[in-house]
Amino acid sequence: MPTESSPLTIAQLAELAGVSTATVSKVVNGRSAVSSETRAAVEELIRRHGYRRQRRRSTPAALVDLVFHALEGDYPVEITKGVAEVAREHDLMVGISDLRRDHTAGGAWLEGVLRRRPIGVIAVFSGLTETQHEQLARREIPLVLLDPADDPARHIPSVGAGNWTGGLTATRHLLELGHRRIAIIAGPDSALSSRARLDGYRTALDMAGVPVDPALIGRGDFFIEGGMAEAHHLLRLPDRPTAFFATNDGQAIGVYHAAHQLGLRIPDDLSVIGFDDMPSARWAIPPLTTIRQPLTKMAAAAASMLLTLAHGEQLPQSRVELATELVVRESTAPPALPSA
Amino acid sequence: MPTESSPLTIAQLAELAGVSTATVSKVVNGRSAVSSETRAAVEELIRRHGYRRQRRRSTPAALVDLVFHALEGDYPVEITKGVAEVAREHDLMVGISDLRRDHTAGGAWLEGVLRRRPIGVIAVFSGLTETQHEQLARREIPLVLLDPADDPARHIPSVGAGNWTGGLTATRHLLELGHRRIAIIAGPDSALSSRARLDGYRTALDMAGVPVDPALIGRGDFFIEGGMAEAHHLLRLPDRPTAFFATNDGQAIGVYHAAHQLGLRIPDDLSVIGFDDMPSARWAIPPLTTIRQPLTKMAAAAASMLLTLAHGEQLPQSRVELATELVVRESTAPPALPSA
Repeated sequence: MPTESSPLTIAQLAELAGVSTATVSKVVNGRSAVSSETRAAVEELIRRHGYRRQRRRSTPAALVDLVFHALEGDYPVEITKGVAEVAREHDLMVGISDLRRDHTAGGAWLEGVLRRRPIGVIAVFSGLTETQHEQLARREIPLVLLDPADDPARHIPSVGAGNWTGGLTATRHLLELGHRRIAIIAGPDSALSSRARLDGYRTALDMAGVPVDPALIGRGDFFIEGGMAEAHHLLRLPDRPTAFFATNDGQAIGVYHAAHQLGLRIPDDLSVIGFDDMPSARWAIPPLTTIRQPLTKMAAAAASMLLTLAHGEQLPQSRVELATELVVRESTAPPALPSA
Repeated sequence: MPTESSPLTIAQLAELAGVSTATVSKVVNGRSAVSSETRAAVEELIRRHGYRRQRRRSTPAALVDLVFHALEGDYPVEITKGVAEVAREHDLMVGISDLRRDHTAGGAWLEGVLRRRPIGVIAVFSGLTETQHEQLARREIPLVLLDPADDPARHIPSVGAGNWTGGLTATRHLLELGHRRIAIIAGPDSALSSRARLDGYRTALDMAGVPVDPALIGRGDFFIEGGMAEAHHLLRLPDRPTAFFATNDGQAIGVYHAAHQLGLRIPDDLSVIGFDDMPSARWAIPPLTTIRQPLTKMAAAAASMLLTLAHGEQLPQSRVELATELVVRESTAPPALPSA
């Protein structure tokens, strides 16, 4: 038998696992009709010994697998557009999966990927488990993370935006208008992008000599409903904020609703700044001042990286970060003078 | 040689066309590197004689091809969700194409489909040419139209909504509130759904004894910008409308902007009703009264029909129409009394 370090063929794996070659083939190619125990045993052998294809690898399908945390809001459309642009140039199809708000892809999703054999996977705002990374790597299916929720391990290519700088810029914009009671609605703590924006907010306040008031730090989930609930809470504080950094456009729309329900006018009574610059920001009333995150370009960059990897080439850098920029519209203004 | 009515093999087609079998194979399988003249000549032979596969047809890819007129607004997300739900249950991937506002898919798109061999195609708010229909049919790739722009030929399965009834209901809602100067912003004339909504509007007015004023009939393109431009025009009429039927939610948002720019309050000065019930309708300020079109359900129905066809079974009916319903929110109210 081979040593631990030399990869095994399907026949060798079958012998070691005490199962048929057909069963090993099913596991390797992500087909179902294998018990989870057998699957785990074979995967463990592959993990320890490696797996060597006996024949030339079958050509990958002309497909990019694009997996979303959630098919909600403008975000999936902006990203799909960017991936589709690059895919079209290379005669590739874009295949969509929806994790329905799960941040980790399940086993069924991975089995589907192994069956489909795409040229690669782009995972949006979601993470794969360490095992799933290994399973993809072993089948030579490259992976690029887009706007990763977690801190991607050094070796996993990823595309993100300048979240910290964006948070700093957003908060400075409000400070420059004269605001001092500036609330923030952060996203989920598990999202690195949210932590970066929050840190940018803290640093901007600190540099302006404005103390960070923990009472003004709210937590949302990056969806409209959560932003609205947090805004209601923050707007009922005795010394209520005069401005909000909503950390994404969805939560900013939530702040608009809370303000509307409380009879507060934007920007006369309350300034609001978002993050993303989705079409809904432009079409909000009043149009939303926000930090533009070039999602379509980020998605195109992720697709280009994936193609480089699929061609067996090295990436010049595994982490690409695109710059954010301030887009001033009509939702921010100097604070109202205190009524005499 | 065979008669006109018996389908030809690749070898027979090659002989008739005076080209190699490899070239015919490329045309049949949608591969490139064939001159357009040769392609046309072979397609014409196939059209006249038919084409007979020599071997068992290769298994279709576990893929549903979903082609959009445009990746813009909430519409693609709502539809993709519905198709993805059904696809997930059957271990199928959903592949997305974006025609970028073209209503007819180009040759490159069709060649991609033939290469990919999906289990079927769902075309959203877009049409295929007669030739493309034939090309798909010849390869046994089923097609379902979703919210078809044109009147689908009798034999092409399609899913739509009760557009005429929705138009009638929307207009009646405004009439019941007491409006008489009711403007409509129709979609493009080429869209059957728009014509049906407009006819529903006309009938509702007629049944209420309110004359249809051609000056109050505007034309948009189902996008926000077009709706805004038309609303500006209609709101500048000497005897301006007190209510708008915007015929989709995007155009309704356009009316909101025009009203905002002219200092008119919704619903105090102007009532607005949309059509679709996208998430943006619920999150508009004030929340938009609209006609709900169950897009996600419609998309799921289209995917189920496609699966039936892919299994070689007959559909109980080739045209499925889902009902629309009125959703009353806060953008409609009785007209303001004329100022004394």
